[in-house]
Amino acid sequence: MNDTFLKACRGEPVEYTPVWFMRQAGRSLPEYRALRKEGSILNAIKDPDISTEITLQPIRRYGVDAAILYSDIVVPVHAIGFGVDIKPGVGPVAIDPFRSSSDLNRLRSLNPQVDTPYVLETIQRLVDVLEIPLIGFAGAPFTVASYLIEGGPSRSYQKTKAMMFSDKSLWDSLMERLTDITIESLVSQIEAGASAVQLFDSWAGSLSPAQYEQFVLPHSQRIFEALSEHSVPRIHFGVGTGEILHLMSAAGADVVGVDWRVPIDEARKRIGVGKSVQGNLDPSILGGDWELISEEVIDILKRNAGQHGHIFNLGHGVTPEVNPDVLKRIVDLVHNFRTAS
Amino acid sequence: MNDTFLKACRGEPVEYTPVWFMRQAGRSLPEYRALRKEGSILNAIKDPDISTEITLQPIRRYGVDAAILYSDIVVPVHAIGFGVDIKPGVGPVAIDPFRSSSDLNRLRSLNPQVDTPYVLETIQRLVDVLEIPLIGFAGAPFTVASYLIEGGPSRSYQKTKAMMFSDKSLWDSLMERLTDITIESLVSQIEAGASAVQLFDSWAGSLSPAQYEQFVLPHSQRIFEALSEHSVPRIHFGVGTGEILHLMSAAGADVVGVDWRVPIDEARKRIGVGKSVQGNLDPSILGGDWELISEEVIDILKRNAGQHGHIFNLGHGVTPEVNPDVLKRIVDLVHNFRTAS
Repeated sequence: MNDTFLKACRGEPVEYTPVWFMRQAGRSLPEYRALRKEGSILNAIKDPDISTEITLQPIRRYGVDAAILYSDIVVPVHAIGFGVDIKPGVGPVAIDPFRSSSDLNRLRSLNPQVDTPYVLETIQRLVDVLEIPLIGFAGAPFTVASYLIEGGPSRSYQKTKAMMFSDKSLWDSLMERLTDITIESLVSQIEAGASAVQLFDSWAGSLSPAQYEQFVLPHSQRIFEALSEHSVPRIHFGVGTGEILHLMSAAGADVVGVDWRVPIDEARKRIGVGKSVQGNLDPSILGGDWELISEEVIDILKRNAGQHGHIFNLGHGVTPEVNPDVLKRIVDLVHNFRTAS
Repeated sequence: MNDTFLKACRGEPVEYTPVWFMRQAGRSLPEYRALRKEGSILNAIKDPDISTEITLQPIRRYGVDAAILYSDIVVPVHAIGFGVDIKPGVGPVAIDPFRSSSDLNRLRSLNPQVDTPYVLETIQRLVDVLEIPLIGFAGAPFTVASYLIEGGPSRSYQKTKAMMFSDKSLWDSLMERLTDITIESLVSQIEAGASAVQLFDSWAGSLSPAQYEQFVLPHSQRIFEALSEHSVPRIHFGVGTGEILHLMSAAGADVVGVDWRVPIDEARKRIGVGKSVQGNLDPSILGGDWELISEEVIDILKRNAGQHGHIFNLGHGVTPEVNPDVLKRIVDLVHNFRTAS
């Protein structure tokens, strides 16, 4: 197995910078669109034949150093019957959003063998054939809670924050349930064969440092603690998290992912010593000229030169418009980069 | 005239911290909804009777220290016939988005006396009756460009960034046109009687510092330079701008507005000496308990204690769901705050 990615996660020396792309599975690949056709993404996720194939497609095409399971952060809450779907072109939607303590009953604990057997089956099939590490993942409690409370994607997270600021006890109960579900899901993915896990707190950057520390950090901390007995690298990522990187690092991950808003050498300072860093090319520039894109790639690599523990990635997920050839060129550029010495 | 707000903008000593709210005019006020009824916001803006009244409504209710014109950042490009409307529940939309150099012809210069006489008429009526300063405003070229290119609100600004990164010459031409229009609009508002201006680069926080510096800063700089001969305070604001506050400050404003993501004392350090700071209560917590809201208000005031040049505000605009009584209580709390000494 090519373990360059795992070594970089642990801050060990590597021969080249490993690279993978958030949302590399699916989205922009024509072979993905041909396979999946129309309908909810959840149907594709529930079929191990399809989700195994979709996970493998970008590996064949790009030569990345890690695979990430084709799944979604709302799969566990969907699986226990909360009533969440993924609407094409919109994202996760909750038909009957989380409003009061009576909704806590809709969040029973997850029994992965029974509730998400297709996830475990897909992982087992993948690890049989992959020659690179497979990353499992889950949504962090805050980000999943935001979908359950808002009923869908949001720009302001107003209902979520109103709940935080008006009923701390209900908020904590909700976060505790989601924390349990997240741990159950991630542990099952590791036991099925995932070599690393990423906890997506995609929207935590909407919080002030004080809000994050009070309402989110203790729960994310419990997740990373629960995973510590499993010796796999733990990655933590969110968008627009410049002001809370030190706290996301304190939550206990081994690797902290950052978006393009913070120069990656500055991000590394905020994350602190002894941790690895993942990122941080702006995916929104991938429609531009290769010359300018390659300059940004090189700039990111140079900012990490001479330090161990960098995994190259985008600062957010691949979008449907991205040309796969550009991603392939980025992988080659990253793999061939050597600092002038 | 109560000039507490203007003194704070200039960093002069004041007896209490002045306060106003972005989007205080309109949105959550029942008397506003009764007056405006249905239809595009642009129709209300074009009627000086209505827009004067909407501007005054929050002054009567809240006792804020500044009025802000009821208008919108797309008014100038709408007025010159680019083809922009404001869709209720969505925001600004461009039916035929900006795509290529031939679209530059759709962005002729603004003649405020002819193109936006209703704006000037409204300002003149307001300054006749107001006993507090009136703030004029405009959208910054990047933020306005993003609506013209994307065709509406966006989360990733992918088309905007693709244009930046694939056709710098077209990008600069577009930004130059929008810079001219912005200057023409702001100067006309000052000449009509506005005592201060705010340049909204609401979405500049989507850019990395390097992207901002290369593609946006020179244009915003030109705007602030052009305004420097008019001796009114110039405010600059965007959302999620923690990593570019030093650059937004360098663009030349007298006051830099910040959102809740950066603690305001930290923001002040990044903005640098000799500038005032405006902000930064998270509007999304206004649905929470008063006890917690008031703690956050006091925290912001304490972080500015002992320093001149703070204007209290939200970290983003008032949303329709906000209870006006909460805003009134915030004004009173801010006005009555005195640091223990």
